[in-house]
Amino acid sequence: MNPQTIDASLVHTIVAGVVAMIDRMNGRAIPVELSARHIHLSAEHANQLFGSDLTFDRPLSQPGQFLCKERVRLIGPKGILDNVAILGPSRNRTQVEISLTDARTLGVRAPIRNSGNLPGTPGIILASHQGLVGLDEGVIVAARHIHMPSDYAQQQGIKDRQLVRVRMDCERPLILEDVLVRVADDFRLAMHIDFDEGNACGWEPDKSGHIIAGQREQSHGY
Amino acid sequence: MNPQTIDASLVHTIVAGVVAMIDRMNGRAIPVELSARHIHLSAEHANQLFGSDLTFDRPLSQPGQFLCKERVRLIGPKGILDNVAILGPSRNRTQVEISLTDARTLGVRAPIRNSGNLPGTPGIILASHQGLVGLDEGVIVAARHIHMPSDYAQQQGIKDRQLVRVRMDCERPLILEDVLVRVADDFRLAMHIDFDEGNACGWEPDKSGHIIAGQREQSHGY
Repeated sequence: MNPQTIDASLVHTIVAGVVAMIDRMNGRAIPVELSARHIHLSAEHANQLFGSDLTFDRPLSQPGQFLCKERVRLIGPKGILDNVAILGPSRNRTQVEISLTDARTLGVRAPIRNSGNLPGTPGIILASHQGLVGLDEGVIVAARHIHMPSDYAQQQGIKDRQLVRVRMDCERPLILEDVLVRVADDFRLAMHIDFDEGNACGWEPDKSGHIIAGQREQSHGY
Repeated sequence: MNPQTIDASLVHTIVAGVVAMIDRMNGRAIPVELSARHIHLSAEHANQLFGSDLTFDRPLSQPGQFLCKERVRLIGPKGILDNVAILGPSRNRTQVEISLTDARTLGVRAPIRNSGNLPGTPGIILASHQGLVGLDEGVIVAARHIHMPSDYAQQQGIKDRQLVRVRMDCERPLILEDVLVRVADDFRLAMHIDFDEGNACGWEPDKSGHIIAGQREQSHGY
C-alpha cells in the first residue's frame, strides 16, 4: 500500500476505535484471591473418609461455596502434605487442586487443567483418621481463572470461556496471559491464582489485577 | 488536535518507526535458567563453616561461576532448609538467595532485591557439620534478571541496568515486566528466574523467553 493514499480521517477513525476498545478492556480492578491447595470430595469419598457428610466451617468468596471443618492428608509416591483443606458442597467427582511446588513435593506429575477436566490426570491417596481413599485420577494444577458475574461481563463485552490478559498490580509486575473467564449470574467478581503465581508476582492480601487489551493468537486449551 | 490536520506521510513515518523499534526489540530467544536457592559465601564465612576454601564441583552457565561441593543448612525462626547449594568463587559479602516459598518455610521476611543490595535485609543461621554462622543480614529473593554480553546488548540497543519485558514461551503464558538487564563483556546470554516464577509459567528445561517492546512507565527499584 502506498502510504500517501491514507486518508487522515480514516486514520483518526481507526485510532479512535482502538482507544475506545482499550478503554473498554481496561475495566475496573479485579480482586485477586490466592487459592491454597484444596480438595473437592464426592459424597461417597466424604463418607469413606469421615463416615458422614461434610461439615460447614466458614463461607468462601463464591456464593454457596464453603470451607469444611474436615481436613485430609495427601500421600504421594515421594512426599506427604498434611492438613489439606476441603471445600464444600460435595461434587460429582473428587478433585485435588495443588500447585506445581506441591506436585514436586508429592511426586505426582499433575498437569495444568481447568476445573472438571480430569481425564488422564494422576491419582493420589487421601487419608483421614478414619479412612483411606485411593484415587485413580483427579489431581490437577488448576489453571488461573476469573469468576465474573453476568452483568459485569456483558458491560465489558466479555463472554463465558473467553481468554484474557491480566496485569497484576503487585510488587513483581507481570502480565498473566490465557486467563480463563467463567461467567455466571451468581458469581462474585474475583480472580483465582495459586501460590506459585502469587509468589511470582509478589501478591499480598487486597491486591488486584486489571484486564488489559490484546490476547495471544494461539492459546492453550487446558 | 484536529485530526484533519494529520499528514498521511507523517503517520507513515511514525508507523514505520514504531514497527522498526518493535522489530529491534523482538530479538532472538533468550535461554531461561531456573535459579534454585543458593548461597554466596565470604571467604571468612567459608572458613568458619568448612575450615578451608570452597571446593569446585562443576561450572555454571556464567563464565567463572561454579557450584561448590560443600552444602549448608539454613535455619530460620520457623523452619529449616537442608542441602542448600553454595556458588563460588567467594564474594566480599555473604548473600543468601531464596524464593518467597522458601521465605515462608523458613519464617523470614526476605525482600525482593537485586544481587548485592543487602542493607535492611533479614539475617539467618548457616550451619555445616563443622560450624555455625549467625548472619545479621543478607537474605534476599533475587529479582529476575538477564545476563547479556556487551556485543549482543549493543546490537539490540539495550543498556546496562535497563528494565525490559519478557514473554515466557512456556505452558502458562505470561509476560514478566521490570526485568533487569545486566551487561558485561564476559556474560553468556541467559535469563535467571526463581522456582516460583518458573512454576508460575510452567517452565521446563530448554525453555526460552523473548524481549518484547514496551515497558511500564513507573518501575520498581529493587
